Amino acid sequence: MKVITTIDEMQTIMNKERKNGKSIGYVPTMGFLHEGHLALMKQARKDNDLVVISIFVNPLQFGPNEDLDSYPRDFEHDSMLANEQHVDYIFYPSVKEMYPRPSSVTVTVNERTDVLCGKSRPGHFDGVATVLTKLFHIILPDRAYFGLKDAQQLAVVEGLVNDFHFPIEIIPVPIVRENDGLAKSSRNVRLTEKEREQAPVLYESLLHAERLILEGERDPKMISSVIEGMITENSDGVIDYIEMYSYPMLKELPSLQGKVIIALAVKFSNVRLIDNLILNLE
Amino acid sequence: MKVITTIDEMQTIMNKERKNGKSIGYVPTMGFLHEGHLALMKQARKDNDLVVISIFVNPLQFGPNEDLDSYPRDFEHDSMLANEQHVDYIFYPSVKEMYPRPSSVTVTVNERTDVLCGKSRPGHFDGVATVLTKLFHIILPDRAYFGLKDAQQLAVVEGLVNDFHFPIEIIPVPIVRENDGLAKSSRNVRLTEKEREQAPVLYESLLHAERLILEGERDPKMISSVIEGMITENSDGVIDYIEMYSYPMLKELPSLQGKVIIALAVKFSNVRLIDNLILNLE
Repeated sequence: MKVITTIDEMQTIMNKERKNGKSIGYVPTMGFLHEGHLALMKQARKDNDLVVISIFVNPLQFGPNEDLDSYPRDFEHDSMLANEQHVDYIFYPSVKEMYPRPSSVTVTVNERTDVLCGKSRPGHFDGVATVLTKLFHIILPDRAYFGLKDAQQLAVVEGLVNDFHFPIEIIPVPIVRENDGLAKSSRNVRLTEKEREQAPVLYESLLHAERLILEGERDPKMISSVIEGMITENSDGVIDYIEMYSYPMLKELPSLQGKVIIALAVKFSNVRLIDNLILNLE
Repeated sequence: MKVITTIDEMQTIMNKERKNGKSIGYVPTMGFLHEGHLALMKQARKDNDLVVISIFVNPLQFGPNEDLDSYPRDFEHDSMLANEQHVDYIFYPSVKEMYPRPSSVTVTVNERTDVLCGKSRPGHFDGVATVLTKLFHIILPDRAYFGLKDAQQLAVVEGLVNDFHFPIEIIPVPIVRENDGLAKSSRNVRLTEKEREQAPVLYESLLHAERLILEGERDPKMISSVIEGMITENSDGVIDYIEMYSYPMLKELPSLQGKVIIALAVKFSNVRLIDNLILNLE
């Protein structure tokens, strides 16, 4: 496994590997890797000759009051985990390497941003789309891997790749869960012991909603209130949102139909958790 | 020469040609080809195994009061000219093919836009950068050719390619001129006979400015007033702007130094002409 820190070297190596006929799988990350990331790398490892990950905490996608400076970093541990997954290259550029000066061009995301987590993070997805445009061009992978945990990000990335015709296939990877159903996240350690016991209700409420829908319920308000009831009755969590949309367009639906996402965010004392379920309805 | 109208087919063909080791030169155009375009194709023909041009009148780069509908189109004549230049492929998509629905993502140009022609065309370069991002991904050329006539566009494109790390080399091609020095343009036919006789003064004034600068003059205001004097005394043209900037950053300079552009736009009765000169100063 090699660690590359400059854009020039990364482009040169990738060009050479591509000319040698190697297929390239790419996992973009902000580091502090957890099992969700490992699932992406495992899938990339299965599908490709080479696996590249990037570790870059992208300032452009943090708002002025967000936790850019305190965002957790542990390159040594990350590179150990990547090595265990037989990653071939880690692209690990500095902020100065990626943004030597303010970029003369940025990507603006015009759709899918004013819902779910994007609603409270103006400009966040512009920052995500801009850095991915740069990273995609530097690495030019055949396939790039994104977790379904952040389903809104995945939807935005699919819009970016489709509308800009990037010659890259986006591979969605299912959410990795604990045995009790809680979606894995590096933030779960911030739950108190009591909250950790309560937290599986998030996924249970989604599964309950799924059952209701399979039994014929199609009213988003009805389903939302059932989820809300289950979570507030069974945990100290405060609901940030429970939302249902078409997927991946993220348009509101008066009645659920087609491919839909049920997504929720719940605040506990020291951490906000998200989870979602995507369903294909007749 | 083949004419391709769908994105899918164009990407498939280009992938195949690239895998066969062919180098690809690309000339993006809005059609109604003139000798400026032919110079780009000639250069592309010299440098590459394959030459691709695109003909697409991009609605995104026209303002609400601009001439999108009346923009001249003549595909038959264009394809004859392209054939004469031994072009291999014309990519000729419809608006519906390029924008089946409003794009979920667009490129925003944050620099170099509030000067020269960009000043009076808000959003114009966002439209240019957005369509070029799409076209670059569809064709993935080794080299793309742009005329120095539209020096601001070239500067914006260089910013786009550098800051987004497109794996494409941008080749600037010098302005093609009539024997009397007038920069070639399909709009020159809109000059009256008298104006046509006067129009070479635009380039003469730039050459005069060059002489002054080579003799040691460095004050942009001084040089600008000399150019203005020459044009107003020797033509009926009304000066739209005479501006001097660093190139390609297009930043104002209190005193001319380094690589600089002198650019001007002059309105005649039925047409506005532009011209420029780029100088490398010690």
